[in-house]
Amino acid sequence: KQMNRMEIRTDLALEAREDIEAKGERESGVMFSEQMDETTGIRVTTVQIVNEEGAKNIGKPVGTYITLEAESLELPDEDCHRQVSEKLSEYLLGLVRSTTERVEENPPAVLAVGLGNRAVTSDSLGPKVVDELWITRHLENASPKISGIVPGVMAQTGMESAQIAHAIVTETKPQLVIAIDALAARSASRLGTTIQLTDTGIHPGSGVGNHRHSLTKESLGIPVIAIGVPTVVSAAAMIYDTVQSFSMILRESGEVKTADWMDEQSPEERFQLIRELVEPAFGPMMVTPKDIDERISQLSHTIAEGINMALLGQADT
Amino acid sequence: KQMNRMEIRTDLALEAREDIEAKGERESGVMFSEQMDETTGIRVTTVQIVNEEGAKNIGKPVGTYITLEAESLELPDEDCHRQVSEKLSEYLLGLVRSTTERVEENPPAVLAVGLGNRAVTSDSLGPKVVDELWITRHLENASPKISGIVPGVMAQTGMESAQIAHAIVTETKPQLVIAIDALAARSASRLGTTIQLTDTGIHPGSGVGNHRHSLTKESLGIPVIAIGVPTVVSAAAMIYDTVQSFSMILRESGEVKTADWMDEQSPEERFQLIRELVEPAFGPMMVTPKDIDERISQLSHTIAEGINMALLGQADT
Amino acid sequence: KQMNRMEIRTDLALEAREDIEAKGERESGVMFSEQMDETTGIRVTTVQIVNEEGAKNIGKPVGTYITLEAESLELPDEDCHRQVSEKLSEYLLGLVRSTTERVEENPPAVLAVGLGNRAVTSDSLGPKVVDELWITRHLENASPKISGIVPGVMAQTGMESAQIAHAIVTETKPQLVIAIDALAARSASRLGTTIQLTDTGIHPGSGVGNHRHSLTKESLGIPVIAIGVPTVVSAAAMIYDTVQSFSMILRESGEVKTADWMDEQSPEERFQLIRELVEPAFGPMMVTPKDIDERISQLSHTIAEGINMALLGQADT
Amino acid sequence: KQMNRMEIRTDLALEAREDIEAKGERESGVMFSEQMDETTGIRVTTVQIVNEEGAKNIGKPVGTYITLEAESLELPDEDCHRQVSEKLSEYLLGLVRSTTERVEENPPAVLAVGLGNRAVTSDSLGPKVVDELWITRHLENASPKISGIVPGVMAQTGMESAQIAHAIVTETKPQLVIAIDALAARSASRLGTTIQLTDTGIHPGSGVGNHRHSLTKESLGIPVIAIGVPTVVSAAAMIYDTVQSFSMILRESGEVKTADWMDEQSPEERFQLIRELVEPAFGPMMVTPKDIDERISQLSHTIAEGINMALLGQADT
Repeated sequence: KQMNRMEIRTDLALEAREDIEAKGERESGVMFSEQMDETTGIRVTTVQIVNEEGAKNIGKPVGTYITLEAESLELPDEDCHRQVSEKLSEYLLGLVRSTTERVEENPPAVLAVGLGNRAVTSDSLGPKVVDELWITRHLENASPKISGIVPGVMAQTGMESAQIAHAIVTETKPQLVIAIDALAARSASRLGTTIQLTDTGIHPGSGVGNHRHSLTKESLGIPVIAIGVPTVVSAAAMIYDTVQSFSMILRESGEVKTADWMDEQSPEERFQLIRELVEPAFGPMMVTPKDIDERISQLSHTIAEGINMALLGQADT
Repeated sequence: KQMNRMEIRTDLALEAREDIEAKGERESGVMFSEQMDETTGIRVTTVQIVNEEGAKNIGKPVGTYITLEAESLELPDEDCHRQVSEKLSEYLLGLVRSTTERVEENPPAVLAVGLGNRAVTSDSLGPKVVDELWITRHLENASPKISGIVPGVMAQTGMESAQIAHAIVTETKPQLVIAIDALAARSASRLGTTIQLTDTGIHPGSGVGNHRHSLTKESLGIPVIAIGVPTVVSAAAMIYDTVQSFSMILRESGEVKTADWMDEQSPEERFQLIRELVEPAFGPMMVTPKDIDERISQLSHTIAEGINMALLGQADT
Repeated sequence: KQMNRMEIRTDLALEAREDIEAKGERESGVMFSEQMDETTGIRVTTVQIVNEEGAKNIGKPVGTYITLEAESLELPDEDCHRQVSEKLSEYLLGLVRSTTERVEENPPAVLAVGLGNRAVTSDSLGPKVVDELWITRHLENASPKISGIVPGVMAQTGMESAQIAHAIVTETKPQLVIAIDALAARSASRLGTTIQLTDTGIHPGSGVGNHRHSLTKESLGIPVIAIGVPTVVSAAAMIYDTVQSFSMILRESGEVKTADWMDEQSPEERFQLIRELVEPAFGPMMVTPKDIDERISQLSHTIAEGINMALLGQADT
Repeated sequence: KQMNRMEIRTDLALEAREDIEAKGERESGVMFSEQMDETTGIRVTTVQIVNEEGAKNIGKPVGTYITLEAESLELPDEDCHRQVSEKLSEYLLGLVRSTTERVEENPPAVLAVGLGNRAVTSDSLGPKVVDELWITRHLENASPKISGIVPGVMAQTGMESAQIAHAIVTETKPQLVIAIDALAARSASRLGTTIQLTDTGIHPGSGVGNHRHSLTKESLGIPVIAIGVPTVVSAAAMIYDTVQSFSMILRESGEVKTADWMDEQSPEERFQLIRELVEPAFGPMMVTPKDIDERISQLSHTIAEGINMALLGQADT
């Protein structure tokens, strides 16, 4: 029985693709483009998974994954954040148009779903973004109609977030869901500096809270755009990567001659071993930077502003 | 066109009945009993509205309204609160049994709905109670299945709370809803010292947030028990009452001989005039005691404990 | 024994002056000017109490009271709020310069004190403003040095806010305190639409929480600028005003011929009577609009932006 | 230059001692006793560092470190938590008496200091405990006088927590400080299941927030008892431990014959290398379990109850 490579977990299609590239594996069914804006320093990467073969290779569903990266997102500089909001708004609008083109009503009624646990700082991105959105559904003559829900987590409600979202979609009949969630990355350097946009929705096992049910066009009957920011690295992934680097450094430095134990095991076996060492008592452990509260606070504002601009054509407060 | 007496607003059936009694009006269709527990100082009053005539007289739907009053609820004394929790648990269990007797599954699966606005202290009772409930629906073999939702308010979600509750009831099929809400009373002396239990659910216009849609057996298809605590008095009601007392004192003291202006107007005309003076720019203004945060904090714990005991047979933390 | 007029409470010098003007009382020792900005709709009023006679007449200490009024503050319009932030910044900078002119270090090190109770929505303005300030004191080479403290309220700490502020001033030696607080107004129409700036600090009895100790140049040894927004009206004041209007309307309408009971009592006697009716069991009751959470949220952002601009020359996020 | 062993960080004296024991190093100057309560399953360990030699060996200051361990702390069982509260109360009272025996006033006036960052879940233990304490200092005739402060973190205030605590001690003159803080452990199995009590106060570098200044009898002039619970493991420590276990397992399993690279480096060199791999961009990364919010919530209640019982002889709500 072969272990799935995706158990070395990342929610970023970009990282999944890099991983494959690094291993020299097949990338058929996957298109990739990159664009660097010199003025703003924002790098936009698009990974397009065009068919099932691509999906199998990358380990993510068929669809479009757009990644915005800006080191300036680490800084509390208002101007940088506004530039990212504008770029996000532009790409989000593109996805809204491409996913809802057959919708008659124009613009579409949107339900924003803030996934995650408000009480855990690293998982609070979704709720905080929805807190800052302009909600208009209850206002007469407002267009578009925008509603928002923070479903909470199972320990608080006894229900899956996806179930609550499904119930509300059925009841209130929006034409598009925008789901916002905190993600897990492989690389600590991406924490809080990367935003991923995708038209594939939310899949089981994704997000800091590891959703158990999907939030997709298949499950909800309407398109689902997901916006995510990596805020944690799984402890097992971080240790795996460190062990790899450790071994590489030791070999390169010549201090160690025989590190053949690393070669005798497959990467999957090694990762499995690490998980067994790390997770016995606690289930998944999460690694997060110490100033996570400030990063989440800024990022949720940046993303809310991007969504408000895309949907309503103006910046929020 | 005659003004409805209920516009001088109270969510407490007990107060509505007292009002009628004070006026010497008809009380047919209404049964009333009272029980004082000398040991604990808890007074339990039951108003039973038995038919449509009673409903018309009191201005509330047919059903049972149980009120627990304890001055000790104002104090931070743990023992008093536990006694109130136990009494609440006992009466709640009675209502659960009488409303769900035909339900085959035993005990019934319950959805707790925490109504109100978490961001406004006087309206945060419902959300805070649900925060402290034991949620079990997601746990294997748990009995009964208890789930909970805090739907938020329309300015935050764009949706009516009742709509969100309806969606979740349809999706997850509980057998009973317990809705918890902050209420408006007539008398400031009832703020934070009274708990009302009813099997009639939540009706439009009730609660601090003035719900626009109902949460009842008719709207949801399953019984709805509502638990409420008055946390505000409407400014118009308080002023009306003060003007009444003012005039009475002046007359009784003999300082004023001619206060006939009070008699030339009907109570409804006077109340309408006061509302026009108070609410022009702001819509309803709310009157609340200054230490409302501490009272809400204690009461939500007391109520959560009562619900946990009734449903699970044990006290919470 | 004569009742002090200030017991009919307002924290706004503007209202205290209007009250005097309405009664045709003496205004010597008080200078008054008003300026309306037609473009922005912001009205700026300056009340200058120049000597002890003025202080006695108005019932507030000698000093400058600047009031910014804008109806647009009720609306969630970002542009209006930015205009108010800019105007606030301009007047705040004026006060900073006039109060700290003899300070050698330039710009002065500032301690921002967020007064009030974070857990009570209408009293949470101060804490929320300090949450959004740019704190720089701990950063190397930052100028000016800005620190911030949210002292909490006595029920939470067992200590007076003024005591905590005094302790921190003694320990960290700033040159200026800026205290932010929620205020009580007389008129409900001023709630959330008025900002008062003063160089006289915080005095016992002021604020929603009714501070018991002062925060002034005398008590702290350094200048104290106070920024406040009225968020509540005392229930007694509102009832008093309503009774007054009520009586006036009745007389003017001719519906009531003899309302002489109103004339037989002095205003002070009447107000005292109302307080005795309203406050017996609960101490001061507060009247607040139902959407207070959204107003506080916007206003705290507007004020924080104004302070950040004044001190650091830039807008915050 | 030799690296200090303590850089492989733990705030628990118990772990520091275990580390030494495991290495077979000298333990002179250190006394150790252990007591297991079979009924409750609570293990109480006392590490007494009696002189400077012990302090050097363990890497912690001279004093008493009491550790309460109970696996039941992971569970939401009310009874277990109450047993832990009672045990904590008993040992805390012992420390209060031994540290304040010469204090004339009896019982001593206590200032509780809730260290840490309320906005970061894993660092919010201190603030949450102080939120639940019975504060009495402002009440007439209350004995003992208990006050509480949540100083916040430097990014929020611009000031060191220790500075704020020092200021308030100087101003309000309590006789004892009880500081509550979230700690960093070496072993993930101790997260949320261990409470450490010590009479040595808070030292630079300790706590999740890595305090820069001390809170000790030397710095404050009065005894400081510190209560802490480990809520994070440093990423570097976790990786180091995993690499050690990894290597051990590989060797024991016989799958790897030559793992001599591990032996060629000193433990300090290896740990340093890991830190360089993990912390380049972000400074210290923290590892925390996913359900940290619920654990903190329960533990803060358990600890607050223990303190309330010790100081006031009763349980809190």
